[in-house]
Amino acid sequence: MITVHNLEYSRAMRVVWLLEEIGTPYDLKSYKRTDAYRAPPELKAVHPLGKSPVIEDGALTLSESAAILRYLDDRYGGNAHQPPAHSEDAARHDEWLDFVEGTMSRSVVAHFWGRKSGAPVDEKMRTEFATIMAYLANSLEGRAFLMGETPMLADIQISYLLAMANYAGALADHPSVSAYFERLMAVPAARRAVERCGPVMPPA
Amino acid sequence: MITVHNLEYSRAMRVVWLLEEIGTPYDLKSYKRTDAYRAPPELKAVHPLGKSPVIEDGALTLSESAAILRYLDDRYGGNAHQPPAHSEDAARHDEWLDFVEGTMSRSVVAHFWGRKSGAPVDEKMRTEFATIMAYLANSLEGRAFLMGETPMLADIQISYLLAMANYAGALADHPSVSAYFERLMAVPAARRAVERCGPVMPPA
Repeated sequence: MITVHNLEYSRAMRVVWLLEEIGTPYDLKSYKRTDAYRAPPELKAVHPLGKSPVIEDGALTLSESAAILRYLDDRYGGNAHQPPAHSEDAARHDEWLDFVEGTMSRSVVAHFWGRKSGAPVDEKMRTEFATIMAYLANSLEGRAFLMGETPMLADIQISYLLAMANYAGALADHPSVSAYFERLMAVPAARRAVERCGPVMPPA
Repeated sequence: MITVHNLEYSRAMRVVWLLEEIGTPYDLKSYKRTDAYRAPPELKAVHPLGKSPVIEDGALTLSESAAILRYLDDRYGGNAHQPPAHSEDAARHDEWLDFVEGTMSRSVVAHFWGRKSGAPVDEKMRTEFATIMAYLANSLEGRAFLMGETPMLADIQISYLLAMANYAGALADHPSVSAYFERLMAVPAARRAVERCGPVMPPA
């Protein structure tokens, strides 16, 4: 049985979304954040980095959302949530998957913390965020999801960062990205993930 | 012919390292950083995010270092720089690949900019960096590279961030990570990449 270690308001909702999509049974172990919005120390016993999501599947303990998504889709999902291996679409999908935490996260996280702390977001991060929103809006033109008409791992991966940007009020000026975010959260497996994990973002 | 768009002192050295490893011919187009250490505007004509590395291979334009490494290894390298697909080692290798830009970069980049600007690194980033160094040191115990005795894509991927940390003087207290960084930079294909791309880090 797969165990998912789920911190509240965390990237773990992505893992649960995919498991709900695949229909594989799993155990959910949930943890509250500390008053400082940090992961609690118990998570260090699960993985030395003390973060979430982490999954355990037999002897394998695995962290990093994208690696977990790839593993679960390969092992239990028949790789149905990615383009066919060795195709150019597979390369483009990898590019989106890496873009989320590698390129997009910095300015989104800055907006999230700006909203949470009430401090203004610095200009460099505002410029970077605007570039990213324009890139996303352009890439989504004429398609419902990043790779076409079906949500794939990269869409699941990006959902959490769009939830952070939405929480920060930063999607208001980007209607097509905002509509994409709404489409993502309306996917039935995403809704079931929120039911099981709790709200994706803290109270406003 | 593959074209690699190479910004000086950038993540592009990772792509050139792998191409040197594989032995596939490629064209290198090199760009200088601006006085503000930014990518020059010409790179926006190559890819809307205006970053490096970007490769062009026929009709495919691809960004994100890890996606480029996967693509090149799959298309030209016989996937020889990754564990066998569908194995638990493949999942662990994915985890390292995602760890680099997803988890490790934030505190390393903070140290890099601290060194460059002369401003002190804040405590949160120092703590996070120490956790990451301890995790790396532990993971490397009894092995030369992340997955064993042979450098793989994740080792190529991490090399640039270790170069940033080394530039910042932040590896001095972490001798086993520092020794690993020296092993990486001594790999013949890594040395050839530095010859072609120029130094990995700006002058001290």
